[in-house]
Amino acid sequence: MARLNWGLIGGGEGSQIGPAHRLGAAVDGAFAFAAGALDHNAEAGRAFGRKLGLAADRSYGNWHEMLEGERARPDRIDLVTVATPNATHFEITKAFLEAGFHVLCEKPMTITVEEGEEIVRLSRATGRICAVNYGYTGYALVRHMRAMVARGDLGRIRLVVAEFAHGHHADAGDADNPRVRWRYDPAQAGVSAQFADCGIHALHMASFVTGQEVTRLSADTVSCIPSRVLEDDAMVNFRMDGGAVGRLWTSSVAIGRQHGLTLQVFGETGGLRWAQEQPNQLYWMPLRGRLQVIERGEAGLSPEADRASRVTMGHAEGMPLAFANIYRDLAEAILAQKEGRAANPAADLYPRAEDGLRSMAAIYAVAESGKAEGRWVDARPPMFR
Amino acid sequence: MARLNWGLIGGGEGSQIGPAHRLGAAVDGAFAFAAGALDHNAEAGRAFGRKLGLAADRSYGNWHEMLEGERARPDRIDLVTVATPNATHFEITKAFLEAGFHVLCEKPMTITVEEGEEIVRLSRATGRICAVNYGYTGYALVRHMRAMVARGDLGRIRLVVAEFAHGHHADAGDADNPRVRWRYDPAQAGVSAQFADCGIHALHMASFVTGQEVTRLSADTVSCIPSRVLEDDAMVNFRMDGGAVGRLWTSSVAIGRQHGLTLQVFGETGGLRWAQEQPNQLYWMPLRGRLQVIERGEAGLSPEADRASRVTMGHAEGMPLAFANIYRDLAEAILAQKEGRAANPAADLYPRAEDGLRSMAAIYAVAESGKAEGRWVDARPPMFR
Amino acid sequence: MARLNWGLIGGGEGSQIGPAHRLGAAVDGAFAFAAGALDHNAEAGRAFGRKLGLAADRSYGNWHEMLEGERARPDRIDLVTVATPNATHFEITKAFLEAGFHVLCEKPMTITVEEGEEIVRLSRATGRICAVNYGYTGYALVRHMRAMVARGDLGRIRLVVAEFAHGHHADAGDADNPRVRWRYDPAQAGVSAQFADCGIHALHMASFVTGQEVTRLSADTVSCIPSRVLEDDAMVNFRMDGGAVGRLWTSSVAIGRQHGLTLQVFGETGGLRWAQEQPNQLYWMPLRGRLQVIERGEAGLSPEADRASRVTMGHAEGMPLAFANIYRDLAEAILAQKEGRAANPAADLYPRAEDGLRSMAAIYAVAESGKAEGRWVDARPPMFR
Amino acid sequence: MARLNWGLIGGGEGSQIGPAHRLGAAVDGAFAFAAGALDHNAEAGRAFGRKLGLAADRSYGNWHEMLEGERARPDRIDLVTVATPNATHFEITKAFLEAGFHVLCEKPMTITVEEGEEIVRLSRATGRICAVNYGYTGYALVRHMRAMVARGDLGRIRLVVAEFAHGHHADAGDADNPRVRWRYDPAQAGVSAQFADCGIHALHMASFVTGQEVTRLSADTVSCIPSRVLEDDAMVNFRMDGGAVGRLWTSSVAIGRQHGLTLQVFGETGGLRWAQEQPNQLYWMPLRGRLQVIERGEAGLSPEADRASRVTMGHAEGMPLAFANIYRDLAEAILAQKEGRAANPAADLYPRAEDGLRSMAAIYAVAESGKAEGRWVDARPPMFR
Repeated sequence: MARLNWGLIGGGEGSQIGPAHRLGAAVDGAFAFAAGALDHNAEAGRAFGRKLGLAADRSYGNWHEMLEGERARPDRIDLVTVATPNATHFEITKAFLEAGFHVLCEKPMTITVEEGEEIVRLSRATGRICAVNYGYTGYALVRHMRAMVARGDLGRIRLVVAEFAHGHHADAGDADNPRVRWRYDPAQAGVSAQFADCGIHALHMASFVTGQEVTRLSADTVSCIPSRVLEDDAMVNFRMDGGAVGRLWTSSVAIGRQHGLTLQVFGETGGLRWAQEQPNQLYWMPLRGRLQVIERGEAGLSPEADRASRVTMGHAEGMPLAFANIYRDLAEAILAQKEGRAANPAADLYPRAEDGLRSMAAIYAVAESGKAEGRWVDARPPMFR
Repeated sequence: MARLNWGLIGGGEGSQIGPAHRLGAAVDGAFAFAAGALDHNAEAGRAFGRKLGLAADRSYGNWHEMLEGERARPDRIDLVTVATPNATHFEITKAFLEAGFHVLCEKPMTITVEEGEEIVRLSRATGRICAVNYGYTGYALVRHMRAMVARGDLGRIRLVVAEFAHGHHADAGDADNPRVRWRYDPAQAGVSAQFADCGIHALHMASFVTGQEVTRLSADTVSCIPSRVLEDDAMVNFRMDGGAVGRLWTSSVAIGRQHGLTLQVFGETGGLRWAQEQPNQLYWMPLRGRLQVIERGEAGLSPEADRASRVTMGHAEGMPLAFANIYRDLAEAILAQKEGRAANPAADLYPRAEDGLRSMAAIYAVAESGKAEGRWVDARPPMFR
Repeated sequence: MARLNWGLIGGGEGSQIGPAHRLGAAVDGAFAFAAGALDHNAEAGRAFGRKLGLAADRSYGNWHEMLEGERARPDRIDLVTVATPNATHFEITKAFLEAGFHVLCEKPMTITVEEGEEIVRLSRATGRICAVNYGYTGYALVRHMRAMVARGDLGRIRLVVAEFAHGHHADAGDADNPRVRWRYDPAQAGVSAQFADCGIHALHMASFVTGQEVTRLSADTVSCIPSRVLEDDAMVNFRMDGGAVGRLWTSSVAIGRQHGLTLQVFGETGGLRWAQEQPNQLYWMPLRGRLQVIERGEAGLSPEADRASRVTMGHAEGMPLAFANIYRDLAEAILAQKEGRAANPAADLYPRAEDGLRSMAAIYAVAESGKAEGRWVDARPPMFR
Repeated sequence: MARLNWGLIGGGEGSQIGPAHRLGAAVDGAFAFAAGALDHNAEAGRAFGRKLGLAADRSYGNWHEMLEGERARPDRIDLVTVATPNATHFEITKAFLEAGFHVLCEKPMTITVEEGEEIVRLSRATGRICAVNYGYTGYALVRHMRAMVARGDLGRIRLVVAEFAHGHHADAGDADNPRVRWRYDPAQAGVSAQFADCGIHALHMASFVTGQEVTRLSADTVSCIPSRVLEDDAMVNFRMDGGAVGRLWTSSVAIGRQHGLTLQVFGETGGLRWAQEQPNQLYWMPLRGRLQVIERGEAGLSPEADRASRVTMGHAEGMPLAFANIYRDLAEAILAQKEGRAANPAADLYPRAEDGLRSMAAIYAVAESGKAEGRWVDARPPMFR
């Protein structure tokens, strides 16, 4: 396996997202960690990069330096991950795509829909990959759900019911803690809080699994803690372009729920249920049949699920390996492009710039509908209408 | 214990609801089954009554006969249960209340809101009990949830999330089966199908547990099986008079769900979760604490829960005993009235005519909002506005 | 349905077992509560009987009076339940059988194996039913397990793994509480504590479900609270006459377990798992298949399970209705005998005197093996060797 | 962080264990994969090593070459992992320890108890680390159980109940498949099959969590598939040197169980329950309290659990990261030794040669007791008696 060079922007010492990306990129040995601009403090970033084993000349002080340094090298990085504060995603992603790099951008890809459209156009024009890190789609059984829907096991999809509920922002006494407060402040977080932070994962997953895109939605957004401007709880009803009806509940005040990302899909001939907290089991009931437990790693699953499983059945696999599956998909996509061949279809599953754009449009639609007493609004970005 | 005389209208041979009521009334020995008009076929009803041990002269051919027969007796029935087809509930309930009987009416109490208001007025004017059989409120741990909210364990209630989802009407091939089809036909079922059949239980439970009434709601109703006129899936957002926000999902096409009646309540200082399929456990998480499992029958529960528990902890109690708790409440209420004393507050929990009325108003509101793209509408009956 | 007359000995005011029997006998209306000797205090017993609605002349002061009173009546009781302290079971059961009554005896049926053999001989000689209340066998899905094994779904049974673990006697500070202490005192409890109290239910269930009898066993018995003479924890390995291997763990010091009565059965072609705390689901995995959830009340179950289900799928049924199923079986057995016909085989499932006897032999075998470092001993009563 | 050099013996192309070790070693970046002898076919091994990025001169044809090659290098490997067929573990481990390398040996460490004692002596004499890969001890919540016991949360430990049951060898039609058959053949597998393969993990975990060593045991071993010489099911009762009583069930014919590695620990003041299939939750019940759910990653856990958690609460972590924790412990131990300091106690948790030896003694004891009708035998290796 030819190894690819990988670079990381952001993810400085003490961050949570940095180790997750480094682990995800390292697991399969497809990527060598070759370059980084890890901290907004240039010196701290350079020092941390060297500590992690980067060569001194590839441990950069900021992303501009990194862009200049890498574009000039014959062994330049094959993929750059953008894990910086949200407001900078657009600018950095744009610059690296323009310079011919493949990019994996943390969500949200941009702050506005217009920026999202620009990234999509740029990615298409340059032929460079722009992936967005909806990492939960990397779970083997989420991919198996998608495969089951695609091959028709459920018949026409009638209904998608998604949840992403936790209680980690339920403490009113902690609401002024800066670590929490910024999320509910439009000046810092934009037009949406809990939906943009968590709900969007569930909405993307609804599309990922059904193969349908969201067209219209109606949202009921509330701030259960009154001092908050943005919502800490939202219910979103939606419609998809293949005819599916959707319901999505997201909350950050649901005390007792830890990380309730759950997806149920109901079709004409069967129903599926999957929950992120126990990701190695998938509940499947065929019409007129009995509830069955599909185990990650069992024999006879779809190629998509087989490829995304690494350890034998009965041994839990968790979020870090779901993440790693996104990286493995990207390695395959990059290699296929280098080698002028089609990528393995079972690996061609990473979320695209188009998904990042659609998510931005959905977030704005939720905010708009939420302010208008739940009026149904178009959830599509203008370029896809 | 003075035994009370009990009569049943409906619940003929082969019905499901008849045995449930007879069992519920019999369990504690408070009621003796003394009279019945069990079938719309007079002869079949009389024969079945005698088979069940009724005296020949109290096994009536129809409810009119029963009303005449019982009102004249010194040992007349203390309570009559109305378990006939929905369209007849109002007429029979009204007649028995007017004649001075206490009534337990199956849901829906009436077909229209106006009729509901009439029953409420009549019950108040006569001083007779008119209870409505929202039987799930009889579960010990549902009553404990109510007690925990009432005594302030959760602080102010922010959010109620309710579900009642099953998949028993998901088979399009079976949709024309008369046993199923009538439920989705406005001529037979009225303005709502799945919400009126199942969702209303969850909505009532939201009020029962929080002690708050629904004021406004917005509904998204859909027919996943296109030949249906009435909804087989609905999402209802609502607001309550104590400030709580509500979300309620109900479905009859959720293949894989058997009887998903679930209630989550989130307040300022804790969250609760209960599911009807495992009714003997209640999940409680205090703010800043850990998820705990409250067991039905454990020491130190509320008086309401203690009274509603019959067997020791670890032995499951199911729906029939929840039902029986409603009957036991009624026995206490009737005896208290006879004896001129206040009823035991831990028993004063049976659903009232007012609840039946509020439910009718909510059903009409859901139907109205569902037709109007989810417009928010007043969910209160006119007399409570 | 001809109603049968039923009498109860023991179960005085405040007892737990009395209401359970009265409820179980009453649920289906097959038995009328006609006579009782409810308390060792004659006056209290008579008063409580009258309070429960017994006629004054059938509310007896003790079981001798009741035996004399009932044997003389034309409307004498058809079945008597013996729910007195353990040491009196033999004497009372014997007297009523000899007088021609059918008996349902609480477990343990006797204190010694010899007494057990005497009851078996007496029951056979008189043709009277002597049932023993292993009430957990009344659960619909336990009966379905038995039916699945009997019809060969699992092939030859290889292995039975049973548990009955709780933590309600784990508190050393409470060990001297008389309510707890007597159970571990040989003078009051006999040769075994936790195995005789709980483990024996699981052992009986292993036989009930597999249709095989225990032949030999080896026990490791320990007193985790050192002041106890009798065991509070035991592991029993056993062999059955159809070749099955058994393992059974029982404990009263397993803090965190409420009522862990669980049975797993593994055969050549499939495995089953059932747990009393969630009795409405049965987990079934056919060889080379997938784990499936069998729901109580689902279509197509065995006649034994159908008959034992009373409410629709998705509505939990609990212990009281399991208990009621034993009574319903007895009603059918008594009526069949009266009418000179064979009983419905789907109802012919109540535990017999033979089961009570085998249980006594197993308890003595556990005690013997436990004292002999787990030496394998014969677990059969002499008369069945 | 100074990176350490790591070598691997075994784990050739297509093996399951090779990727698991490479992932485990790579995750934290503490080890660089520097040398390997990956296949018993020298050429295949060299080619695979180069494919994985090893330098040509460190991709060896066999372990002898590797030993010679590495001992001579200044940048010699700091740790070698032995993942070869069981029969070769002793020889290779011995040779590398003698040459001054630290070793992580797959289980079983040796084939005989005598060899085990030799490895322990050698490890002590050379001061080299010899770790054994009981990888399930790397789970964060298993480590938290150990910490809770050590700090006294449970008081004196009374009882340990362990299980490791699966059904993957239950198919008699597949029993002659060579992939399965060798495991039950004494010529290839030694004195024990299922206990040595799976049960020993559970037994080691009982010691790991309680801090007590097994002293005596009694085993009931059976071959549910009659053609097998070695056991496919075993029940082991044991005693520990701190007074705890143990029960351990292991099976490979438990159809419906996937990977039932479960540990329950009961002490004077509380009980714990953990299951490998849902490793991110730990059930804890304090005496006189309520069952609580401890979540991996929650605030306030022990230092051992905190260090072993990598992603935030609610995101599942699985077996690969448990494995990685063993490697991270070893990196810390090696660095501490290099730097002449004590290792971080929260990292000093990897299983030792002593554990590998004790496991061998227990396996022989199970085999001996199993042949002798469950006679209690000493389970300790001679050098620890």
